[in-house]
Amino acid sequence: MRKIGKQEIEDIAVGAALLGTGGGGDPYIGKLMALQAIEEFGEVTLLDADEIPDDVLVVPSSMMGAPTVMVEKAPSGAEAIAAFQGLEAYLGKKVYATFPIEAGGVNSMMPFALAARLGLPVVDVDGMGRAFPELQMVTFYLDGISATPGVLADEKGNTAVLNTVDNVWTERIARAATIQMGGSIMCAIYPMTGKNLKESGVRNILKLEEEIGKSIRLAKQNNVNPINEVLKKVGGFELFQGKVSDINRKTETGFAKGIATIEGLNEYKGETLQLRFQNEHLIAQTDKRLLCVTPDLIAVLDAETGLPVTTEGIRYGARCVVIGIPCDPKWRTEKGIAAVGPRYFGYDVDYVPVEELVKKGVLA
Amino acid sequence: MRKIGKQEIEDIAVGAALLGTGGGGDPYIGKLMALQAIEEFGEVTLLDADEIPDDVLVVPSSMMGAPTVMVEKAPSGAEAIAAFQGLEAYLGKKVYATFPIEAGGVNSMMPFALAARLGLPVVDVDGMGRAFPELQMVTFYLDGISATPGVLADEKGNTAVLNTVDNVWTERIARAATIQMGGSIMCAIYPMTGKNLKESGVRNILKLEEEIGKSIRLAKQNNVNPINEVLKKVGGFELFQGKVSDINRKTETGFAKGIATIEGLNEYKGETLQLRFQNEHLIAQTDKRLLCVTPDLIAVLDAETGLPVTTEGIRYGARCVVIGIPCDPKWRTEKGIAAVGPRYFGYDVDYVPVEELVKKGVLA
Repeated sequence: MRKIGKQEIEDIAVGAALLGTGGGGDPYIGKLMALQAIEEFGEVTLLDADEIPDDVLVVPSSMMGAPTVMVEKAPSGAEAIAAFQGLEAYLGKKVYATFPIEAGGVNSMMPFALAARLGLPVVDVDGMGRAFPELQMVTFYLDGISATPGVLADEKGNTAVLNTVDNVWTERIARAATIQMGGSIMCAIYPMTGKNLKESGVRNILKLEEEIGKSIRLAKQNNVNPINEVLKKVGGFELFQGKVSDINRKTETGFAKGIATIEGLNEYKGETLQLRFQNEHLIAQTDKRLLCVTPDLIAVLDAETGLPVTTEGIRYGARCVVIGIPCDPKWRTEKGIAAVGPRYFGYDVDYVPVEELVKKGVLA
Repeated sequence: MRKIGKQEIEDIAVGAALLGTGGGGDPYIGKLMALQAIEEFGEVTLLDADEIPDDVLVVPSSMMGAPTVMVEKAPSGAEAIAAFQGLEAYLGKKVYATFPIEAGGVNSMMPFALAARLGLPVVDVDGMGRAFPELQMVTFYLDGISATPGVLADEKGNTAVLNTVDNVWTERIARAATIQMGGSIMCAIYPMTGKNLKESGVRNILKLEEEIGKSIRLAKQNNVNPINEVLKKVGGFELFQGKVSDINRKTETGFAKGIATIEGLNEYKGETLQLRFQNEHLIAQTDKRLLCVTPDLIAVLDAETGLPVTTEGIRYGARCVVIGIPCDPKWRTEKGIAAVGPRYFGYDVDYVPVEELVKKGVLA
């Protein structure tokens, strides 16, 4: 157990944006919400998974919707409280603690904003160890935990309690409601026991995020290469260095979809990287080489500062380093690959672990 | 109090389709569901509004969705029970009785199918005195009764409990969910007290439907003109006689929208009627004359049998008589016209009561 204050939030926000692989919403908005709530209501208690009793009710905090919409329509916090209180009323049970559904800009910060307001602790666990665009894409789903009963709430005061036959149906109905409700909404879904969370979640994710953010911050002070510091922390690999030469993106059925093209620099000169994203970066490949594939993580970092760049933050001409990080082992199972592998997203590519792709060398 | 058996269902189905002004779903499917439930569970008790205690919970039965979809995906009845039981569980109170949300093919029959299965009585009241395409278009809305808490259920087993800030938001969110849930769903919305129902509903609608159906049936036996019999029952007016020369229809955002063109016959020869519909017939006009405008009722009857024709049942070459019927006085208020008048549906026409339009004579 420890307290999370403003400096921790700053560091976690950076690390979460990096593990969010370009998605999970604008880290700046999420951070502002969390900082404001901590300013107003005080620091938030962070618990290790082992500190949670087995039989309590825990519920992740999450926003659903296109990050591009969230930038224009910042959540107020009232809809998060409405969603949680709606779920408590429906289940007739108090929520003991909350935690992030995923690692990513807004969704790593929402639990702190909500926890500060409601006086709840946050648990150092998430449901992905990264970010993904659909709400059945969580380790809880792989372990058969239902997304519903769950509550959706918008900033106008509308709520919906869903009970669906499976988590894919939760996604379909919630996505349609999200589009009607203005493009982004707050969810209180995946209510579960402390035991579920300990068995099924990805542990120590906030600790890792904080360490990533801190190492980027200190690298600047200590005048060392921030990207090398990050690679050590996450056990990742440099995939590419280059300059953004084209971005093709659109908001479609509630997702920010597109392709970024990066022209190689330094030892990658002459190669062109294509980065395909659907909220998150999902595939990195050149004409000759497959570099990294979902569910392994692909992060785009600013070449100078080492700070992560979101899919909506990628700008023409920006110099960047693309890195790959092995995903949580739960995703490397048959069920995991079926749920979030490249074929699920419509890419005609088999999953190969990033460490094997990297072994093939810098050039094919 | 009286019992509703198979003959009553047959007659009510015909009258409901007529007052449904072309919408409210395929009367044949609704009738089959009601007949099957009565066959299996016995006759249904029909109560007058005055027989309902003031403080009981009553909930209308309704399907939402495009009638064209319902034809292909007949409801099983299980989703209606799921919606009602979900609402009872949410409110912690038993439903005392049900009633039709509107007069129209499926939605006049659903209460009987559900009531037979659940052992509930049906009340002889509806919320429109006709059919309309959106769920805030009920007399309850005019009187400030909330559509939510309400439950949506599909045939797969998915349910959603909605709490919205107003009834227009219920419509928006439910419509989006309907499209995801396969194009048509069962709703348990507008939970209200017996007192609400008595003050705000349109009374004796089932009695009127039954009398319409019976008069069409007996006209055939007695060899009298069925359309004249209907006009006497409903206090309506003949607007046009003709032959269908063109139908332009599409299913759009969950509605069956279009225009039917009818070439005049007999005393209407030389005139062409355009009939605009959005699930229901909303405007009848010729080049020279406005004949009838929503919220007054426009029904298309088969010229020979007098049977009502739905918007999806209109066929090229069919000979028909178009009639107009004054709507319930609740719709003729300022709030009523704003909610369901021609401008709400996007037509640049002012509402004029059908009896005034008719006074202007057959020809302009």
